[in-house]
Amino acid sequence: MHLHDRFAEFLSASEIIEATPALLNDQRRRFVSSPDIVLQPNSIESVQKIMRFCFENRIRVTPQGGNTGLCGATVTTEGVLLNLSKFNRIRDINLADNSMTVEAGVILQNAQKAAAEAGRLFPLSLASEGSCQIGGNIACNAGGLNVLRYGTMRDLVIGLEIVLPNGELISHLHPLHKNTTGYDLRHLFIGSEGTLGIITAATLKLFANPLDKATAWVGIPDIESAVRLLTETQAHFAERLCSFELISRFAAELSSEFSNLPLPTHSEWHILLELTDSLPNDSLNGQLAEFLYEKGFTDSVLAQSKQERIHMWALRENISASQRKLGTSIKHDIAIPIGCVADFVRRCAKDLEQNFKGIQIVCFGHLGDGSLHYNTFLPDILSNEAYRYEDDINGTVYRNILACNGTVAAEHGIGIIKKQWLDKVRTPAEIALMKSIKQHLDPYNIMNPGKLLP
Amino acid sequence: MHLHDRFAEFLSASEIIEATPALLNDQRRRFVSSPDIVLQPNSIESVQKIMRFCFENRIRVTPQGGNTGLCGATVTTEGVLLNLSKFNRIRDINLADNSMTVEAGVILQNAQKAAAEAGRLFPLSLASEGSCQIGGNIACNAGGLNVLRYGTMRDLVIGLEIVLPNGELISHLHPLHKNTTGYDLRHLFIGSEGTLGIITAATLKLFANPLDKATAWVGIPDIESAVRLLTETQAHFAERLCSFELISRFAAELSSEFSNLPLPTHSEWHILLELTDSLPNDSLNGQLAEFLYEKGFTDSVLAQSKQERIHMWALRENISASQRKLGTSIKHDIAIPIGCVADFVRRCAKDLEQNFKGIQIVCFGHLGDGSLHYNTFLPDILSNEAYRYEDDINGTVYRNILACNGTVAAEHGIGIIKKQWLDKVRTPAEIALMKSIKQHLDPYNIMNPGKLLP
Repeated sequence: MHLHDRFAEFLSASEIIEATPALLNDQRRRFVSSPDIVLQPNSIESVQKIMRFCFENRIRVTPQGGNTGLCGATVTTEGVLLNLSKFNRIRDINLADNSMTVEAGVILQNAQKAAAEAGRLFPLSLASEGSCQIGGNIACNAGGLNVLRYGTMRDLVIGLEIVLPNGELISHLHPLHKNTTGYDLRHLFIGSEGTLGIITAATLKLFANPLDKATAWVGIPDIESAVRLLTETQAHFAERLCSFELISRFAAELSSEFSNLPLPTHSEWHILLELTDSLPNDSLNGQLAEFLYEKGFTDSVLAQSKQERIHMWALRENISASQRKLGTSIKHDIAIPIGCVADFVRRCAKDLEQNFKGIQIVCFGHLGDGSLHYNTFLPDILSNEAYRYEDDINGTVYRNILACNGTVAAEHGIGIIKKQWLDKVRTPAEIALMKSIKQHLDPYNIMNPGKLLP
Repeated sequence: MHLHDRFAEFLSASEIIEATPALLNDQRRRFVSSPDIVLQPNSIESVQKIMRFCFENRIRVTPQGGNTGLCGATVTTEGVLLNLSKFNRIRDINLADNSMTVEAGVILQNAQKAAAEAGRLFPLSLASEGSCQIGGNIACNAGGLNVLRYGTMRDLVIGLEIVLPNGELISHLHPLHKNTTGYDLRHLFIGSEGTLGIITAATLKLFANPLDKATAWVGIPDIESAVRLLTETQAHFAERLCSFELISRFAAELSSEFSNLPLPTHSEWHILLELTDSLPNDSLNGQLAEFLYEKGFTDSVLAQSKQERIHMWALRENISASQRKLGTSIKHDIAIPIGCVADFVRRCAKDLEQNFKGIQIVCFGHLGDGSLHYNTFLPDILSNEAYRYEDDINGTVYRNILACNGTVAAEHGIGIIKKQWLDKVRTPAEIALMKSIKQHLDPYNIMNPGKLLP
């Protein structure tokens, strides 16, 4: 009997779906999946049945959300591609506990909207929010633009509902803010990239809506100045500092041309920073202007209208799109102690330019979290030919990262493309423990095999 | 050769210490330890040597910090009592990353002071802060008074340094705020109550100092009103709400008499709430007064001076001491969804009074986190005789907790006294995974055996 017929015995017709390019091609068109079957279950019971069947028959299962990952964690060449898009309900919004229970397939933007309609904020915000899904955000411990104030996805998850590889259900969708009953298993699943089970729903933290904002674009000569601005802004405005984005001159000019928007300042480096206040605060703009002037950051422009704020953010958000004209990039999603960023950026650029003549570097990111997107482009190399140089370029970049105690994966995960680097940031004892946990939960290695662990 | 002599071969004389009552008696004088030897190592190398030796020789090791735990997690009747008090250095304060690296034996209050001297806040605050140690706070995932704004200890730990049962060192004392490189093992150790390894140091988050405070004592007729006050205060003041403590009339009156301080209000229930602002905000008191008046909470007193604030907090903090005159209490450290607290308190009191004639209930705690201290006293029962009724009383209390999806251990841990309740809040699959993790790291079960896991 064909696999299709076996699944049809216990799934409805609508749960076995056509394999479309949108499901099979990864975000960067680098990998193409070729699963034996694509399933889109519409109930917990169906997920449990699928997992029980696959567990018994040793069939590999690759879970998939919005398919926006950048590290190939949902690429598969066999077994079941398990798409969670039908798990798209907001199950509950609880104002007393400031929490919201949503299913894994809810699109991030829809979760944000549901919170807003209830008069609350769900703060996770990132470039792909219009299509990425909550389950994937949890599986990769997504970060984005508001981590400085609200933390990464890990910090926003209170409870999880998970189907284990053997089909068993673990459900802790309570809104308890304090709970210390044995080893914290929730955090094992967060960031596990689909290798330990299927996340089907989560209880998430909600926050008060910010009522006032102040946004500034600051031109600075070097990263040392950016770090000084960050430290002083945090010491003064504390949690009101919500975003602190670093943009190199090259990245800013690319985006300005692409967006057809003028740059607010002309300098070697740019900072886009935003304060938010959860109480009405008319004077926030004035306070920020005064602060920047007093601290000597005089090459600053404050957004004086919603339109100006939108323009500033468009310049930041369009960097990714604007760099495409440079060809295929070798991307790095890195984090380093903030005090080391300046040194890293200088050393790494020097090393890369020495080893790869004419290399172009688009450097930008969430300096407030010490996290950078560090994308490199080789001249005159067409499309995916660039990947031939990936290992060499990574070697140079990651050597510099490791020298300053940083990490090779800040907010995109490991997937398949960074597996060989895991043992540079984790000790053998840690990797052995990870493998032991994986082996216990997934003895037949059916759950997203080949991802994350070397 | 005696154990003493074996350790003397590789430890200095000052690292093998006398067993004093302060080390052997637990906080509540309920348990007395009788280890074979008490060690107080003064370096990582010594901890590694001790663990290697104990691993090879299958000697049990019980780690101990400030010995302020309430669940018996550091009680032992054999092997090594490993006291971490000599690990008392603040290793580093990093203002760019807003972090601080401290050793496990640093007393919480000293960590708070070191942060304050650097112009920052380390927000963990709890009754035993003058003697409890950071290592113990991490091992138990301590909570306390500021969880509402800053989270529990779990939320405050960025990096850990751990010696594993076999003596291996895992060190991640970096200040990275984003790092997604495989399963999150840090969170396994946080809250593991010394059963997986020895925490020797941690990198902790720092925050801006609050510059203004507003403190109010509010009298309310019932818990429903308290929940309404909480929800509206959070919706309005958001993260500025730092503490929200519930106190029953009985608890308040006990503390008032003990403290020789008048109660600010006379009502069935009391709320002590505090707002903090990280920017100067002269009008915070006025805003809070206006808010309480507008929302109809007219039985309110605002602290008009530092002295008045200290009095209000003394009334809250003296509850534990003031209840001692009632005899030995059967204590419960519970958390429930906030929307269910009113129902729980009513039902549970009714059940207890029905089953235990004349029982007295001292109910207070961190309502803002859904967490309550729920202490019960039987009349005419002297001292530890009360423990004869512990299982029965727990049965009644926990049945009510579980009926509303709550937890039997909010912020004190499981230790030995709650082990038999673990399988009521965790599924068999979860407990099996916990045991598998324990077995992998500690195959000879030498690391704080008999604690936490059933």
